[in-house]
Amino acid sequence: MNRRTLLKFVGRAGGAAAVLTTMNAMGLLHTQATANTRPNLISQSGDGTRVVILGAGIAGLTAAYELSKAGYDCTVLEARDRAGGRNWTIRGGDVIRETDTQQTCPFEADPHLYFNTGPARLPHHHTNILGYCKELGVPLEVIVNDNRAAYFQDDAAFGGQPMLNRRILNDSRGYIAELLAKAIHNHALENDLTVEDKERILEFVSRFGDLDADYLYKGSGRAGYTTPPGAAMVSGSKYDPIDLSELLNSDFWRFKLNFAEGFNQAATMLQPIGGMDQIVKAFERQVGHLIQFNTEVTQIRKLGNGVRIVYTDRSNGAESAVEADFVICTLPLSVLAGIDADFSTDYKAAIDRASKGYINAVKHAFQADRRFWEEDHQIYGGISWTTRDITQIWYPANGFHGAKGVIVGAYIWDNEIAARVDTLPPEERLVKAIEDGSTIHPNYRDEVAPAQGCSVAWGKIPYSQGGWMEWDEATRADVYPILNQPDGPIYLAGEHLSYLTGWQEGAVLSAHEAVRGLAAQIQSRQAS
Amino acid sequence: MNRRTLLKFVGRAGGAAAVLTTMNAMGLLHTQATANTRPNLISQSGDGTRVVILGAGIAGLTAAYELSKAGYDCTVLEARDRAGGRNWTIRGGDVIRETDTQQTCPFEADPHLYFNTGPARLPHHHTNILGYCKELGVPLEVIVNDNRAAYFQDDAAFGGQPMLNRRILNDSRGYIAELLAKAIHNHALENDLTVEDKERILEFVSRFGDLDADYLYKGSGRAGYTTPPGAAMVSGSKYDPIDLSELLNSDFWRFKLNFAEGFNQAATMLQPIGGMDQIVKAFERQVGHLIQFNTEVTQIRKLGNGVRIVYTDRSNGAESAVEADFVICTLPLSVLAGIDADFSTDYKAAIDRASKGYINAVKHAFQADRRFWEEDHQIYGGISWTTRDITQIWYPANGFHGAKGVIVGAYIWDNEIAARVDTLPPEERLVKAIEDGSTIHPNYRDEVAPAQGCSVAWGKIPYSQGGWMEWDEATRADVYPILNQPDGPIYLAGEHLSYLTGWQEGAVLSAHEAVRGLAAQIQSRQAS
Repeated sequence: MNRRTLLKFVGRAGGAAAVLTTMNAMGLLHTQATANTRPNLISQSGDGTRVVILGAGIAGLTAAYELSKAGYDCTVLEARDRAGGRNWTIRGGDVIRETDTQQTCPFEADPHLYFNTGPARLPHHHTNILGYCKELGVPLEVIVNDNRAAYFQDDAAFGGQPMLNRRILNDSRGYIAELLAKAIHNHALENDLTVEDKERILEFVSRFGDLDADYLYKGSGRAGYTTPPGAAMVSGSKYDPIDLSELLNSDFWRFKLNFAEGFNQAATMLQPIGGMDQIVKAFERQVGHLIQFNTEVTQIRKLGNGVRIVYTDRSNGAESAVEADFVICTLPLSVLAGIDADFSTDYKAAIDRASKGYINAVKHAFQADRRFWEEDHQIYGGISWTTRDITQIWYPANGFHGAKGVIVGAYIWDNEIAARVDTLPPEERLVKAIEDGSTIHPNYRDEVAPAQGCSVAWGKIPYSQGGWMEWDEATRADVYPILNQPDGPIYLAGEHLSYLTGWQEGAVLSAHEAVRGLAAQIQSRQAS
Repeated sequence: MNRRTLLKFVGRAGGAAAVLTTMNAMGLLHTQATANTRPNLISQSGDGTRVVILGAGIAGLTAAYELSKAGYDCTVLEARDRAGGRNWTIRGGDVIRETDTQQTCPFEADPHLYFNTGPARLPHHHTNILGYCKELGVPLEVIVNDNRAAYFQDDAAFGGQPMLNRRILNDSRGYIAELLAKAIHNHALENDLTVEDKERILEFVSRFGDLDADYLYKGSGRAGYTTPPGAAMVSGSKYDPIDLSELLNSDFWRFKLNFAEGFNQAATMLQPIGGMDQIVKAFERQVGHLIQFNTEVTQIRKLGNGVRIVYTDRSNGAESAVEADFVICTLPLSVLAGIDADFSTDYKAAIDRASKGYINAVKHAFQADRRFWEEDHQIYGGISWTTRDITQIWYPANGFHGAKGVIVGAYIWDNEIAARVDTLPPEERLVKAIEDGSTIHPNYRDEVAPAQGCSVAWGKIPYSQGGWMEWDEATRADVYPILNQPDGPIYLAGEHLSYLTGWQEGAVLSAHEAVRGLAAQIQSRQAS
């Protein structure tokens, strides 16, 4: 019995309400956000249990928050002088230290002039990180991911000129629709469509592509106007459609055109008002007192009945140690692989292998003294794309119409490009980024300057050594299940131990897993 | 010579820079927003000229602002006790008076608990109204128009159950792509595509629809998950695709699916922070002293050399008159048709005929004491659609995660539906709207109540008598050009005299036209 037959059967027997219940049970209804995985540990259930958490990023903060609420005695060791890890918002005066360079962010002081160097978006269905925003009082606003007024630029198409998103996208829809309508008229799909469906599909694609009465695509107001409709006798003139072959010469349709339909990229996307690190600050209000900053972990030792963490105080070089019943290690695998630790052989091998999978993301940002993207291009938030190394330019979805603004002048997540870029001194990266960006905004050189910018190459940021983990299929199959188990008293957590790598939700969910696992281990010890 | 040949020719002769210049001249580059039509009158050029402006809506406020800056002696006559016209944001305690009913808005006092009863969106390319927002200090934020987490509900499809926007939209794309790929494999488009394009188009549609290696649509993460990817071993399970015939049974693809690609509806869409009437308040800070409230115009008389406006003071019934050199009349034609005026015969006939074209839009709103759309459905802003009379439910794009929220419980712009709805007393409208909305949110009855709602039927709002003008083709051809000319010293202005009816930008552009025409008339008088 197929689903449709089943539902008809249920409907006949139990009416619409029964169909609804059944569909719901079958997962046919409603959005399914990431499940609420909050551990909800019993109050005081952790009394007397010591947990050391390595890393005060989102995973570590989550673990500290949940465990300390249940009475666990938590210590968070953080190598940097700040919490947040890769959730790092920088503002004027902040210092960026890479392995071999140092920059000071040159932005002016203003609530809107910040740069989310790491995660910058919160999908609406990431209910666990959003739940913390709500519970801990982090106000949110919409971030624009997909803007019809932004540009696509391809050195190999359209003479290298920037093309409006709305033209590329809607001309593509128009041609797809026109071709399908032609095929149907040519009787190419007689076996695939009923007569009734065929008629309706013609109408469907005609609406989808904005075809004319002859099912031809002759341009659409959706693609925009050279002279838009106005007052009095200004009725407007549409753009002529882009030639189909020219469209196909470009690279947009390989990824960029469909990017914003992705499950984790589709509207509504959100951001904390005032910078992503508002989430970090909110967690710190709860568990900041548990964090020991400037403590670089050098050894992870298993004891007979617990763990011993050896660390260096970076302010004076002194070595200390802390013992605990458990450790939750949220360090990136790229960092963990370099730490002297009593992992079992398999576990160590798994860490070493996976640690090669990091994306060395690079982001630059510039303060512009004029919001030229708004004034000259009517771009309010969103992303322009280019085939150049900078890959993207992001426009701020906040501070509209203000005097100044910060734009993300590059967002690179291809390791080959990153390798080219991150070996350059930051100033040279910025010079090159302005050159690249000039293909999108011809006046770019007049609007931004290297001295107004800064760059973060995550592969070269100590204690991160990468942007996020990307599992290839084989490594995911061989190694991932191992690392999702504890190695004795040691639990790993972080975005890398999820199918949401690169997302804070992945870090939160993974921390919940570790917390729950740890609590269950205690319970089973007590029971035995 | 076609465009491509021309550009090649230019490129060979003058290089890339010449191509860019030519493309720009040909309108092939960059977004064209509505032209900046600000009249920029010469300072003091209006000294000694008296202008009466009828109506303190957006057109009237714009005219008063531009004229008074240039020294014109302006008076604005406004029948209501407030400015803004159809730009009307209501909050707790505000009174809604229709021709035969009166309601008091029951919302609690809170900056986020407001209801934009008229215009509620600002497209990014409406540069004139946005220019006033910038100049007059109206802070803006993003409004979500298209949300993949919102619902489509159709009584005639899917057993009447609400379906996720992301499923409908991405399954549609999948099927369109699959059918086109099949047609290409069936050699149905041999005459339409070169061999090279054919290969690329297959790849193109495969990406567009997220097809599998066999060019079949088997569902896509874009359409969402019954269990989304999570941490540890939760890799996620996609929805099965909706049956194509079931999709075609629905009405979504006729309009709703493509709505947000419309030129005036596509991202980025903006809204003033705190309500659309922040624009009105900003104008009032400039020209509020020129407005005489509660003055209902009863006669428009031409004099030998000017105009005489007779009006009733609504506070005491007293009749008065004001004389001026010119009048700019921004009253809706539906209102103007009922006023005793010295229009020429053709002009009067034109007004009468056009005045029948108004859309009697209806909007309801409810305060909900729980933001169930966020908590239960991960809906942050955007619009759900239904085949029921309410047509849409709008979710607020502000005040996220707050304790309470205001949702638009109906937005109707079909005059047939409006006629059914607006004859009901407001409370009955709200009862019915809750019934309709329950098809989208099964728990709706527990979340909103008629006592927490209010309704505005624009066809029954005195001094508006309609939501906006919609020109049919014949009336636009016959009558529209006449009304865009002055009738002696009388200029008409408003959204109705534009190709952007229903948009504030249309009202602004039209006011600019009237102001410019009036100034030119004076100049030509002085010259002769």
